[in-house]
Amino acid sequence: MTTDIDAVTAANQELYSAFETADLDRMEAIWDDADDVQCVHPGWPLLVGRARIMRSWSVLMANTSYIQFFLTDVTTAIDGDVAFVTCQENILTGIEDPEAGLGGSQRVVTTNVFRRRPERWRLWLHHASPVLAPGRNDDE
Amino acid sequence: MTTDIDAVTAANQELYSAFETADLDRMEAIWDDADDVQCVHPGWPLLVGRARIMRSWSVLMANTSYIQFFLTDVTTAIDGDVAFVTCQENILTGIEDPEAGLGGSQRVVTTNVFRRRPERWRLWLHHASPVLAPGRNDDE
Repeated sequence: MTTDIDAVTAANQELYSAFETADLDRMEAIWDDADDVQCVHPGWPLLVGRARIMRSWSVLMANTSYIQFFLTDVTTAIDGDVAFVTCQENILTGIEDPEAGLGGSQRVVTTNVFRRRPERWRLWLHHASPVLAPGRNDDE
Repeated sequence: MTTDIDAVTAANQELYSAFETADLDRMEAIWDDADDVQCVHPGWPLLVGRARIMRSWSVLMANTSYIQFFLTDVTTAIDGDVAFVTCQENILTGIEDPEAGLGGSQRVVTTNVFRRRPERWRLWLHHASPVLAPGRNDDE
């Protein structure tokens, strides 16, 4: 039996698989079909709405020759029909556009919020931010 | 009558007022009394747990001679006993420690998640990230 936690974890992984394979159709299926979806790419301002968010992913995919995500510190919490995932994205990338705010090997910390929909959990908010001080740790 | 939206908006504002006045007691009252609270300061990795998070605020407050937040693009959504606020923090600061990842005038985009508790809405997750490309806008 698939638990809610399993389903949310799978939905979260699907986001990264869609980006790794540069599959915009998969990316569109992941996001909730609502106008209030919200997205922050590392170093970017907030984007609101499906159209803007999908355009941003298509730009990122077009400018990324190679990207691979290794997720660590994945924590999932469910409260009613909302699920929260926080994780660290350890990224290997071959992005060609330095404007994209990514490059080489990088650490990003992310909050993903999913809503329970009849068909599956769908992404409502993606907030990814760069870890700018590699030497910093959470004990200081 | 105070609506839920009003109450959440006030709780959100209280976070910034507590930082502006460097009042750690107010900051402790804002955060949920739970071990799974999570916090990302701009450019920082994820911090989990009240002790670590409160220590980080005390460090930030100690290293900040002056800070003022002008919040724009504040949006609030409530789903059951969870409330989400996204906003842009327009910051004027006199931070003395460049390691803190802030300095001068800066734009930060933030997701704050609150839980409904018997006494009031309390902060469960704060994720703040720097907007690194000032010239970037969401129409590109």
